[in-house]
Amino acid sequence: MTEPRYTPLVQALPATVPFVGPETQERDRGTPFTARLGANENVFGPSPRAVEAMCAEAAEIWKYGDAQSHDLRAALAAHHGVRPENIMVGEGIDGLLGYLVRLLVGEGDAVVTSEGAYPTFNYHVAGFGGVLHKVPYVEDREDPASLFAKAAEVDAKLVYLCNPDNPMGTWRPGAEIVAAMQDLPERSLLILDEAYVECAPEGTAAPIDADDPRVIRMRTFSKIYGMAGARVGYAIAAPGLIDAFNKVRNHFGMNRAAQAGALAALRDADWLAHVRTEIATARDRIAAIAADHGLCALPSATNFVAIDCGRDGAFAKAVVEELGARGIFVRMPFAAPQNRCIRVSCGRPADLDAFAAALPAALTAAAAR
Amino acid sequence: MTEPRYTPLVQALPATVPFVGPETQERDRGTPFTARLGANENVFGPSPRAVEAMCAEAAEIWKYGDAQSHDLRAALAAHHGVRPENIMVGEGIDGLLGYLVRLLVGEGDAVVTSEGAYPTFNYHVAGFGGVLHKVPYVEDREDPASLFAKAAEVDAKLVYLCNPDNPMGTWRPGAEIVAAMQDLPERSLLILDEAYVECAPEGTAAPIDADDPRVIRMRTFSKIYGMAGARVGYAIAAPGLIDAFNKVRNHFGMNRAAQAGALAALRDADWLAHVRTEIATARDRIAAIAADHGLCALPSATNFVAIDCGRDGAFAKAVVEELGARGIFVRMPFAAPQNRCIRVSCGRPADLDAFAAALPAALTAAAAR
Repeated sequence: MTEPRYTPLVQALPATVPFVGPETQERDRGTPFTARLGANENVFGPSPRAVEAMCAEAAEIWKYGDAQSHDLRAALAAHHGVRPENIMVGEGIDGLLGYLVRLLVGEGDAVVTSEGAYPTFNYHVAGFGGVLHKVPYVEDREDPASLFAKAAEVDAKLVYLCNPDNPMGTWRPGAEIVAAMQDLPERSLLILDEAYVECAPEGTAAPIDADDPRVIRMRTFSKIYGMAGARVGYAIAAPGLIDAFNKVRNHFGMNRAAQAGALAALRDADWLAHVRTEIATARDRIAAIAADHGLCALPSATNFVAIDCGRDGAFAKAVVEELGARGIFVRMPFAAPQNRCIRVSCGRPADLDAFAAALPAALTAAAAR
Repeated sequence: MTEPRYTPLVQALPATVPFVGPETQERDRGTPFTARLGANENVFGPSPRAVEAMCAEAAEIWKYGDAQSHDLRAALAAHHGVRPENIMVGEGIDGLLGYLVRLLVGEGDAVVTSEGAYPTFNYHVAGFGGVLHKVPYVEDREDPASLFAKAAEVDAKLVYLCNPDNPMGTWRPGAEIVAAMQDLPERSLLILDEAYVECAPEGTAAPIDADDPRVIRMRTFSKIYGMAGARVGYAIAAPGLIDAFNKVRNHFGMNRAAQAGALAALRDADWLAHVRTEIATARDRIAAIAADHGLCALPSATNFVAIDCGRDGAFAKAVVEELGARGIFVRMPFAAPQNRCIRVSCGRPADLDAFAAALPAALTAAAAR
């Protein structure tokens, strides 16, 4: 044998990765970034109680994690006023999206998302042979009406909608999503990715019954809870769908310390409020920095801000690269016309000072290319 | 919609789980176990340096882990005298087995394993629609000749072999595996699961060139390194196969503290030697306890011992249950005739005292059923 006998699907898959991580970029450039503002990580960090819980559990790490994440599920259920049967805990939203796509999508099955939305979702759909259909953003926002109309047109098994949106930071009131769902096709399951919803104004979380069979909501400890490296996400959905994950998931896939950390983080409402304030301050600061250089920041309901660089995608890409060369890690939307923007995660004052210091030279260098 | 449109494969999958975890059993029985000796966890725990590293990284958990696990891969490559391109780090061997099966196995594809070998592997094969062909153990050992002959007969894409074996604890010298590989069919990829190999006598690890395209070896930090709850495993294989994982894996799936902990654990050879000694002592003690009650322990090259209860599977099952009722968590092999045994993980003196104290009554109660 020279090569293993991969499935035909795998043979056809590209070897692309959804994202190039900051550590990879740092190794390529030979020096660390000064400010890590590209992955929408929460630089304000996890609750000290979560850190304490993870440390305490580190000595117990010889035990496998609880395969049912029982205590965390129970706490999440209480937090959301639903039953534990409505909750599936998994290895980040990325992991849960992979399982969900696997449950529904076979080769040739139609899936709908927005042009420029979450690449890792697209990666999973492609990875299971699904056919992606994309609709454009409308005024820099994901548009439920377009998504659901396309879903009807192509008989989509899954429709992906992120609210608040990544990478633009824009949002719709939850009630608007619910109202739009009257046009969600009967045969399509809506994935409502609310990864950033705790950063958003009151009323952004969609008021959906957890038993509603038309939708599965995704939440995470990676964003406002500051635990991206822990890999804890969860889904809220009808019990039948939640239970279906048990057919395919890695039952012992959860890190034990991460389970304990997430539970402690969930209980620390004060820290959440603190982070929310820090994020709001940082959003304002990023907008001010943009304005200082004649650029316009989009309103954001997330822990990042999209800055309209006023020209095309090539220019924004040059700005991202020039910022990177100056030690500032940021990213940008993938699709036109949103790719006229760069996307800057909320940072501490020192991070944003560094961003502010690097931006003018980066803009000048990008313009001179 | 009442139910999502699952794939036909998923609809046909059973809702079984490979294992019922100890926490689940504790919730069912309403009280914790006195001795946790059923999951082959390493109760002697992780290296204190690994604990320290995980604690230090807990405050940095707001960052995603390095998607390439670069530093850990480099250290593992140096440890094994191979190149980083030969190493894939993943979310435990369970996670890596899932990815590997997905890479090769489509509906109807043949896979070979031993009757009574690792259920989680079987779960993944079934989960991707593969057809499992099983050969019996020979004298309580996995038998490469039988496995490879069956692979030739059914044109298997994958052959699974665990050495040292779980659940029996038996083993073959690595050179014997290599010699047997001359009969491994050209079109079959061998998965050599060496999860327990660091507990085994010198010469048990198969001396296989990392670039040999016929085999992929699996290793883990869950067993001798005492980090089951961290979810860090790795594969050693030819670069082409290693790179194929990048088509399907969760690129940002690794827990950041776990990466740091594994790196620290790998560097602490003294702790490894300490644990190896503790395991050897515990194995002897388990054998002595068995002998005290007229039972025979099988020789073991792992961190657990299979005890032949001298009767059939129903009796051994009763012993497991009666031990459980007395606070002792153990498991047992799934298939006859190996299921005449119970499987007891190496414990601390107090754990084994509890086991020794519970065993006679458990045997009596099982015999009286």
